[in-house]
Amino acid sequence: MKQIGVGLLGFGTVGAGVVDGLCRNREVMSQRLGVDVVLRKIADLDTTSDRGVKVAPGMLTSDAMSVIHDPEIQIIVELIGGTTVSRTFILEALNSGKSVVTANKKLLAEYGQEIFDAAEKNRVDIYFGASVGGGIPIIRVLREGLAGNEIETIHGILNGTCNYILTRMENEGAAFDEVLKAAQDAGYAEANPSLDIDGFDTAHKAVILASLAYGFHVPLNEVRVEGIRNLEGIDVKYAKEFGYRIKLLAAIRRDGDEIEIGVHPTLVSMNHMLASVNDVFNAAMVHGDLSGDTLYYGRGAGRAPTASTVIGDIGDIARNLSTGIPRYSRAINTVNSTKFRIRNADEISSKFYVRLMVRDRAGSLGIMTNAFGKHGVSIRAATQKETDEEFPGYVPVVFLTHRATHAAITAALAEITRSDVINAEPVLLRVL
Amino acid sequence: MKQIGVGLLGFGTVGAGVVDGLCRNREVMSQRLGVDVVLRKIADLDTTSDRGVKVAPGMLTSDAMSVIHDPEIQIIVELIGGTTVSRTFILEALNSGKSVVTANKKLLAEYGQEIFDAAEKNRVDIYFGASVGGGIPIIRVLREGLAGNEIETIHGILNGTCNYILTRMENEGAAFDEVLKAAQDAGYAEANPSLDIDGFDTAHKAVILASLAYGFHVPLNEVRVEGIRNLEGIDVKYAKEFGYRIKLLAAIRRDGDEIEIGVHPTLVSMNHMLASVNDVFNAAMVHGDLSGDTLYYGRGAGRAPTASTVIGDIGDIARNLSTGIPRYSRAINTVNSTKFRIRNADEISSKFYVRLMVRDRAGSLGIMTNAFGKHGVSIRAATQKETDEEFPGYVPVVFLTHRATHAAITAALAEITRSDVINAEPVLLRVL
Repeated sequence: MKQIGVGLLGFGTVGAGVVDGLCRNREVMSQRLGVDVVLRKIADLDTTSDRGVKVAPGMLTSDAMSVIHDPEIQIIVELIGGTTVSRTFILEALNSGKSVVTANKKLLAEYGQEIFDAAEKNRVDIYFGASVGGGIPIIRVLREGLAGNEIETIHGILNGTCNYILTRMENEGAAFDEVLKAAQDAGYAEANPSLDIDGFDTAHKAVILASLAYGFHVPLNEVRVEGIRNLEGIDVKYAKEFGYRIKLLAAIRRDGDEIEIGVHPTLVSMNHMLASVNDVFNAAMVHGDLSGDTLYYGRGAGRAPTASTVIGDIGDIARNLSTGIPRYSRAINTVNSTKFRIRNADEISSKFYVRLMVRDRAGSLGIMTNAFGKHGVSIRAATQKETDEEFPGYVPVVFLTHRATHAAITAALAEITRSDVINAEPVLLRVL
Repeated sequence: MKQIGVGLLGFGTVGAGVVDGLCRNREVMSQRLGVDVVLRKIADLDTTSDRGVKVAPGMLTSDAMSVIHDPEIQIIVELIGGTTVSRTFILEALNSGKSVVTANKKLLAEYGQEIFDAAEKNRVDIYFGASVGGGIPIIRVLREGLAGNEIETIHGILNGTCNYILTRMENEGAAFDEVLKAAQDAGYAEANPSLDIDGFDTAHKAVILASLAYGFHVPLNEVRVEGIRNLEGIDVKYAKEFGYRIKLLAAIRRDGDEIEIGVHPTLVSMNHMLASVNDVFNAAMVHGDLSGDTLYYGRGAGRAPTASTVIGDIGDIARNLSTGIPRYSRAINTVNSTKFRIRNADEISSKFYVRLMVRDRAGSLGIMTNAFGKHGVSIRAATQKETDEEFPGYVPVVFLTHRATHAAITAALAEITRSDVINAEPVLLRVL
């Protein structure tokens, strides 16, 4: 059976999972693929720590370039992360005629165009299945399974840390800071959690999904990103009373030749499959014009699930190489780049949840409903809550709106803020 | 751009969806795939009915063989169904060097070995993504995305008619017969519903999934199949009180070198993602040794969703053909056939739900618990319900057991039946 050599750059948690999985399931893979995948070399600056997996003596080196240029290695797996040496190594590998597997979402979101161009120029494969959704084969599904569909919407819960925090906030009625602290203590959140909780990690993944769905590189700076840091427990509670859970959603939507893309804390109806995605699990719901709603669910991170997808990618390239042909290079940067316009933040429309702390006196409600009406925002539910002890003389009022543009809702809220009926910044959340 | 010709056999509902989808999304597909997929001919015995899609004059013929042997056609799509002419046509196509796409689960479940052997012998592709799960790319995921995993379990809701009936039985507290009638009137169930409600359709799909997961053709007659025809509303109600929904599940499980496979109405905890799969939707949860739990959800039938997957398969083959290489023939019939033993029905273990109509007198409970204990069946919950008016002097008692073999639970129930404490056949359901 033909052998294909693999070189691994970055021997961290996921790297160790890939080494373990490749060795453990080598036989079943070779039966399925008809080609024998052999790990030949690993590069990491740390060549001594015990990662809990055995590697043959001499396999581990600190010299990444020697792995990239090893003539017995056809596939380079980049699991270093970041956007500095990983970028250098990936480009070097592609330009040396090696195919590449990476899980590096930040690199692809920021430098995807350059990397896909290099793969295409050199006629080699670049696979990145584990960059979005960890163990969930969402990238493969968009590239292949739904290839015959126009993708109308994608809604994803793509960050396990945020989903863990939101699940605990809802279940325990706990405050964000408290749950974040617990998540950090339990190892579910980084000491510096900004990448996760401020939504940037989700935005990187949204860029990759949108680029795949619409065939051009969506610039990261055109994605409106809002995290969960400022989410208050009271809104989680009110949402629940309305029959919703709050999730940090990446939302991608096509409307004719225009695309909306954003990351926002969003109310999801309890009846929606995405509302059942709890704890560290991730999921993406994709609506294709033919397939209708489809959903993909699993572990969005972690050693073994991420390794599962990396190994699936390696297997595909190995099968391609055993026939001598790369297949994928044109997947992201096709000829579509002039076809779609990305809507700016103000143009994006959504249903909204609005909470206002309203002066408890006659006429307040009228002022608010007039402001909404004036800006064309139509209300589909409203409820006035008990007075909050923290704000004597004010009552929380919650509105759920029909679909409106962000410009319209913010104009209405600005008008309400200018009146003297509320005493705090309005809380504005999306509703799926 | 290179053109690949497609010939369609069977111009029914799904066939018309494929024609529509191929025409509508031809441009986006060619951008994604780098090859132009062109529908050249359609064969159907009925060459006159209006299917609501336009086809060029002369494209439609009643002569399937002329389509199969058309030199400008490289891919044959079989959407006739059944196991007679469809088998002849598929074998003829494969033996003529044409690659084949089919959605025919019954044919693959019964004649899969012959068909896959023919594909391998002729070195052509056979794709069957739409044979399981309609618009859900579950076949692709098992073949590719999870290729690096040992598959430990698969649990699937694979028949939309059954799931629609079960959802309505639960929501409306209605009886099976009543809901079946309504489903037939609404077109969600066939006039002769046996294939669906007696579980055979689900069994066909289970055979295909198990064969893919374990690399050998699992014989259909080794699958224990139980449908939902005898399911009583009272058990749906009791299940709900315990926090479960009843779903018709295909269950596939590997235990070392042995495989369990069966189709049964099964209690699924409300907290489990599969419990949220309602109405005609389908889903499969796959547990891989690396990936952990992953779930795939969508429409399991219908014109456009099924066409979506058929077109995805066509796209893959077209891409393969544009490079000159078939990739898949060895996917189902690999070298594993002696490795796994399929357990017989008695050996299969599960958690169980048991309902007994018990004589309302002292000592009854003791007789039952002794019988369970004697056969090693451990009880994890039990509840005695109010007396049922239909059975004066008897009370319904429900037990939930820990995992036990089917042999053990049936031996215990036989012993209870032989005593005079119950007045009707015990009801035995699985618990996931």
